[in-house]
Amino acid sequence: MPVYEAPVRDMQFLLHDVLKLQNYSNLPGFADADRDTIDAVLEESGKWHRDVLAPLNRVGDIEGAQRNDDGTVTTPTGFKAAYDQFCETGFGSLAMDPNYGGQGMPTTLAIAISEMTSSANQAFGMYPGLSAGAWRAIHAAASDEQKEKYLPKMTSGEWTGTMNLTEPQCGTDLGLIRTKAVPNGDGTFKISGQKIWISAGEHDMSDNIIHLVLARIEGAPEGIKGISLFIVPKFMVNDDGSLGERNNVSCGGLEEKMGIHGNATCVMNYDEATGFLVGEENKGMRAMFVMMNEARLGVGLQGYAAAEVAMQNAAAFARDRLQSRSVKGAQAPEKPADPIIVHPDVRRMLMDTRAFVEGARALTFWAALHEDMSHKSPDEATRQKSSDYMALLTPVIKAFMTDKGSKGANDSLQVFGGSGYCEEWGMSQFVRDVRIALIYEGTNGIQALDLVGRKLMAEGGRYWQTYFAEIDQWCADNKGQNDVLDGYIDGLLKAKAELQDATQWLGMNAMADFDQAGAASHDYLTLFGLVAIGHMWLMMTKEAQERIGDGDPFYANKLVTAQYFFERVLIESSMHLAKVKTGTSTMMKLEAEAF
Amino acid sequence: MPVYEAPVRDMQFLLHDVLKLQNYSNLPGFADADRDTIDAVLEESGKWHRDVLAPLNRVGDIEGAQRNDDGTVTTPTGFKAAYDQFCETGFGSLAMDPNYGGQGMPTTLAIAISEMTSSANQAFGMYPGLSAGAWRAIHAAASDEQKEKYLPKMTSGEWTGTMNLTEPQCGTDLGLIRTKAVPNGDGTFKISGQKIWISAGEHDMSDNIIHLVLARIEGAPEGIKGISLFIVPKFMVNDDGSLGERNNVSCGGLEEKMGIHGNATCVMNYDEATGFLVGEENKGMRAMFVMMNEARLGVGLQGYAAAEVAMQNAAAFARDRLQSRSVKGAQAPEKPADPIIVHPDVRRMLMDTRAFVEGARALTFWAALHEDMSHKSPDEATRQKSSDYMALLTPVIKAFMTDKGSKGANDSLQVFGGSGYCEEWGMSQFVRDVRIALIYEGTNGIQALDLVGRKLMAEGGRYWQTYFAEIDQWCADNKGQNDVLDGYIDGLLKAKAELQDATQWLGMNAMADFDQAGAASHDYLTLFGLVAIGHMWLMMTKEAQERIGDGDPFYANKLVTAQYFFERVLIESSMHLAKVKTGTSTMMKLEAEAF
Repeated sequence: MPVYEAPVRDMQFLLHDVLKLQNYSNLPGFADADRDTIDAVLEESGKWHRDVLAPLNRVGDIEGAQRNDDGTVTTPTGFKAAYDQFCETGFGSLAMDPNYGGQGMPTTLAIAISEMTSSANQAFGMYPGLSAGAWRAIHAAASDEQKEKYLPKMTSGEWTGTMNLTEPQCGTDLGLIRTKAVPNGDGTFKISGQKIWISAGEHDMSDNIIHLVLARIEGAPEGIKGISLFIVPKFMVNDDGSLGERNNVSCGGLEEKMGIHGNATCVMNYDEATGFLVGEENKGMRAMFVMMNEARLGVGLQGYAAAEVAMQNAAAFARDRLQSRSVKGAQAPEKPADPIIVHPDVRRMLMDTRAFVEGARALTFWAALHEDMSHKSPDEATRQKSSDYMALLTPVIKAFMTDKGSKGANDSLQVFGGSGYCEEWGMSQFVRDVRIALIYEGTNGIQALDLVGRKLMAEGGRYWQTYFAEIDQWCADNKGQNDVLDGYIDGLLKAKAELQDATQWLGMNAMADFDQAGAASHDYLTLFGLVAIGHMWLMMTKEAQERIGDGDPFYANKLVTAQYFFERVLIESSMHLAKVKTGTSTMMKLEAEAF
Repeated sequence: MPVYEAPVRDMQFLLHDVLKLQNYSNLPGFADADRDTIDAVLEESGKWHRDVLAPLNRVGDIEGAQRNDDGTVTTPTGFKAAYDQFCETGFGSLAMDPNYGGQGMPTTLAIAISEMTSSANQAFGMYPGLSAGAWRAIHAAASDEQKEKYLPKMTSGEWTGTMNLTEPQCGTDLGLIRTKAVPNGDGTFKISGQKIWISAGEHDMSDNIIHLVLARIEGAPEGIKGISLFIVPKFMVNDDGSLGERNNVSCGGLEEKMGIHGNATCVMNYDEATGFLVGEENKGMRAMFVMMNEARLGVGLQGYAAAEVAMQNAAAFARDRLQSRSVKGAQAPEKPADPIIVHPDVRRMLMDTRAFVEGARALTFWAALHEDMSHKSPDEATRQKSSDYMALLTPVIKAFMTDKGSKGANDSLQVFGGSGYCEEWGMSQFVRDVRIALIYEGTNGIQALDLVGRKLMAEGGRYWQTYFAEIDQWCADNKGQNDVLDGYIDGLLKAKAELQDATQWLGMNAMADFDQAGAASHDYLTLFGLVAIGHMWLMMTKEAQERIGDGDPFYANKLVTAQYFFERVLIESSMHLAKVKTGTSTMMKLEAEAF
């Protein structure tokens, strides 16, 4: 059975040394997150995820969530008990608003806990994960009365929440939504329709489930401009907060999926269920976008979190499995064969994954810090800049990290050879579970289109101009300290120049032919991801170099991995630039029927 | 449910126009494979695979092979009936030796049928596939008496065969085999031990199963030099060919795998089972290598065959699924949204897969023609050259095609969005099934090491020198015909120069440090695969250009895909060269415990 050890040391390095959270004590909640508190939370959380949650991962895969004849859903053995502990420890409410029972700590710390949950048990993590998304949408868009009514129990975890967007005929294209809302005359609505692929739509872990549902009010405009957002609780909530009658929403079935079996992916039927409008009529997409953007960061995190745990197990297997001798001669002559970690091609897969995971973690934590600053900074310019960065990097984080995370999980399976293909070793589950992350919350293709079609254009290019300038500034500020760092800076500036070249190419070509943007989008996003991760590797290199004298091998190892990244990973940038520039010439040429 | 249509037109193009089988009528069996016969076989086989075998694919995934309490194994519903038809039609014996009941047709034709079987139902295809491997090993290494006894019924399919190599402590490293053979004094042996991961080790489709087992005769030298090969029939075979008593070999369990559920992957227990030595004592590896090399070509084929069928379904879905409008404006204004095939990023995934699959098919058929020539050519120099090419390209075909085939299946799943993740659409099965192909018959890492460590070195570099010279010659012979072809030739020669650069780099660096070969091996092999496929795309371009006047859109489509390959795929070569040259510097630096 696979194991999981939370990468606490690497998280400490990022939070203390690279991002220097201690410098942000002026932000609300950050003063509470001093070094000792952070370390204690990470340690405690690490143990819990290793000892309690990770062992349930394979249970979830084998048993799956099961729908009973009465429409209730039973989660896998141990999930409910683990969820209760998860709520008691407060892992889920760490960064939530203290006005509604949250702890008000930095998102930058909470994201570390989210990573642990996702690594230990992705399917489990989706229950509180989706709930947090619904929490944020309500927090951002609902009335004070609604917030008072729903948020405290969602903060405590007594109630969970869901996001109901997809219908059989519409996934990406929410303008096609048919679920309808009919006014009852008392301010409430009757919601009717079918939603599919609703994660955690029904389960036995919480007392109530607060569904957020996109629907069309009778007579609303066609398309996306006629979509409204509703709260549809599973059980009606009385004014005193107690639960009332059962609402007419039910789980009609569960999807049989490739992975994340422990999560209930529900067909949800709304049959004149009572719904409460959130925000204004026909403005439902706005609140949903808040929720989706944060959810996308969480999905990007799932990508590298899966690669992390898969890599840990692959490394352990590679140290343990004896097979053949090193081509350089026996390395463990006392054993019948050498451990396979002596073979360079096994190392290649481990190092590829490691260089990605550590860079991806840094970028995710960095983005979380900007998330905090975008809300909490007293300085408007800082809030704006952080908000710009979040908008720009959200699609990059979602798509790049799930693409590469899936590859990391697959490479880790490969290290196991035939055992990787046998379910009992658990590697297949990592690969199958993470595969959804390339799809949900907007496929990676949609992310790429969001980046090139929306985020680059926004505010006359302000997002990327500011971001590129920040990278340039960092490089200028840190040049000349030592040859190694200078070499890496040169490498990153070359890749960044390629990214700028690609950006200009898009500017020149996509206006005349919008398809050029789509044709270039995947490679553009991947190139962007390499540069963004490279920026993080520069920051990590600098901090590790400054601390290498401490004698902690952590820093020396970090510098080896940095070198691997700059020598072997970042150089992929040129190929992506070349692909960007090939454009639509052949991509769009065949007739649809020719395929 | 996914569908499958055999790519008969593309196969005809390759066999008739590109490889020009009609020019080889001097080879035994080729005269029987005239154009009409080939077309008839392809058509008939295409229909059968579409109508009979493909619909059983998901059945096999859902039901799996089941072991009963008495140790027998029941294959999924419909497999046995389909197998009987498969044998009756003679699909499996097409290229087998007429001296033992085969049809003696070209392997170059048989490989096309194998592709159809693998696309339609990979798990099913492994039953006759493994059997053919065992057939070849017996044909190559057994005595005439043994061949007379076993081959005719294996040719007809009444009996099947297996390969028993792996044990719990040894996969790649067969020198660690513990299964032992004790002489009975009458020329037979008692075979005892446990083998694992034995595909088709036990099942209900044939009357007998002929196991080929690697074991160590008591007192044999340690390691690989003490391994002998034995025939261990499930039922003893009497002199008159009738079945005798049950041998002491049994299936102890089935593996629970990520995919290929329809195939029985068995733990096989040998308990003083009667075995018959094949060839000489302690020379078992030699015969096994014959079997393994041909099996590796079959596995490479599984890679692109999975991508082919996945792509077909992705294209059909993309033509059908309505979601969002083209960024250029509505393309199907009469519909609520455009089919997603209008979106460039969907095209990218389809075209990437198409450019790979068509090139991979060409290379596989080309290799099969060399396989034929290596055995059948009357000219010794031709036999030698073809044999060299087979040796050189076997690891490339196995690893490159399964790496890229897995990517193609994954990209095809991605086209489906959320539906791709739901098992009912069948895309998950393609991804899960093909995943094993990167592992079995020697992991792709082992293939890469075989290429750089063995095949490049063999005969003083003769294999690759001859092969590179053939590509140069083709380019020289065909330069100057038209600008398009000239451009592609230049592109391929550039990539080939990079491959030669990489080859030289290996020559200079790997001698001093063998780990350099391992560190470079994956990228070297991938670069090699790009060049080999590029060579095929040159040949296909030329033939398509010559026939474009026919008005068959097939040729125009082929040329679009060729352009896509040269513009967007082949250019990956430079990155792989750069990675080759980074060597071991960082890859081997971390302590094993640091992971």
